[in-house]
Amino acid sequence: MANERKRAVVLLSGGLDSATVLAIARGEGYELYALSFSYGQRHVIELDAARRVAAAVGVADHRIAKIDLRVFGGSALTAEIDVPKGRDAEAMSHGIPITYVPARNTIFLSFALAWAEVLGSSDIFIGVNALDYSGYPDCRPEFIAAFEKMANLATKAGVEGRLALRVHTPLIALTKAEIIAKGIELGVDYGLTSSCYDPGSTGEPCGECDSCLLRRKGFRENGIEDSLAYKRGPASS
Amino acid sequence: MANERKRAVVLLSGGLDSATVLAIARGEGYELYALSFSYGQRHVIELDAARRVAAAVGVADHRIAKIDLRVFGGSALTAEIDVPKGRDAEAMSHGIPITYVPARNTIFLSFALAWAEVLGSSDIFIGVNALDYSGYPDCRPEFIAAFEKMANLATKAGVEGRLALRVHTPLIALTKAEIIAKGIELGVDYGLTSSCYDPGSTGEPCGECDSCLLRRKGFRENGIEDSLAYKRGPASS
Repeated sequence: MANERKRAVVLLSGGLDSATVLAIARGEGYELYALSFSYGQRHVIELDAARRVAAAVGVADHRIAKIDLRVFGGSALTAEIDVPKGRDAEAMSHGIPITYVPARNTIFLSFALAWAEVLGSSDIFIGVNALDYSGYPDCRPEFIAAFEKMANLATKAGVEGRLALRVHTPLIALTKAEIIAKGIELGVDYGLTSSCYDPGSTGEPCGECDSCLLRRKGFRENGIEDSLAYKRGPASS
Repeated sequence: MANERKRAVVLLSGGLDSATVLAIARGEGYELYALSFSYGQRHVIELDAARRVAAAVGVADHRIAKIDLRVFGGSALTAEIDVPKGRDAEAMSHGIPITYVPARNTIFLSFALAWAEVLGSSDIFIGVNALDYSGYPDCRPEFIAAFEKMANLATKAGVEGRLALRVHTPLIALTKAEIIAKGIELGVDYGLTSSCYDPGSTGEPCGECDSCLLRRKGFRENGIEDSLAYKRGPASS
């Protein structure tokens, strides 16, 4: 047991935030179990990014769970609804956008909980962010706290009092610029990640969706060049 | 709006409990949206039962979400582990059995939450039972209450204060015998349902797994004949 490292399940989308979280969990000494989802997302190219990031950081295992969120429709990320482009911070801060996938983080965390239980892990990491968060309800600290409480009542380990499950959200209070600064410090190669909600057929980011705009702003504020080749829009204006 | 019925998402496994819940929700006047899962269960025959039950009760829609819980392993219901047979009530009451699927109800309820959000529904029905429950942690009232609380923080409707989501558990305090009595009263045709964890290739129940044993006991206590043809074991001793 002396040399056994604690296991963590890390939700890994292939985007900038989750790549940073993976590096943070590694930095804290966890053995990493990365979990991605094939959920009918239009930006399925992010799964290639997830594989690249998992390999680069070095994980004990990486699984991709197939779930079909399209069965319910309801979001621009899974259904045939246009992804909004070119919105400013003001527009992003109002209401919940059409790219919101109903109950997505609840579903993702539930799967992470299942795997954590099988692995005997009590630590789940997720890259939610309550600042530059595009207004998603399931990215808020009060949601995470409620999920954690529920999770500890849902499992064998919780019932038997063996493990107290914790949902780690190391990015929750950081700006995008702070996240990028932290990742650079930890050696994250952001060139491997994919953030765009609506990438072109060869994977190039659109440069104009909320996710691209937040990413570009974050790099700009760090005075760092983002190595991704955007399809459109000024990269550093 | 005057004639618009309230919508309910009802988790429907095709077993005795969820068929009863569907009839209860219908009795309460809800428009029914039945949700089943193809999750790699070895008793996949229950999905045929779910289709029969949904058609017989009359639902507005029935969806089967494909999710692969086998990706994590860990249960006799999804992995290649033998289903225990012939256990008495004493044995069933100790510990959590190998047929427990990690975080299954958390995952199922999360999907129900997603669909409820898309439908504008604030009512989810689930046939969990805290008495004859085989010792599953995610069947207990405190788990359901915690899920409900989390769910109201997870969604657009919750955040905007438009809907207070409720998870209905009409069977939670009933014995199997009481559930069957209620179903008979509501006209449920239990001959359409499937309860066995380990059915034969033509669908006949084994008669000896925990689920079969609980079902047979419930019928026996009502002095009613179960119309299913069991493979083995005394049907009414």
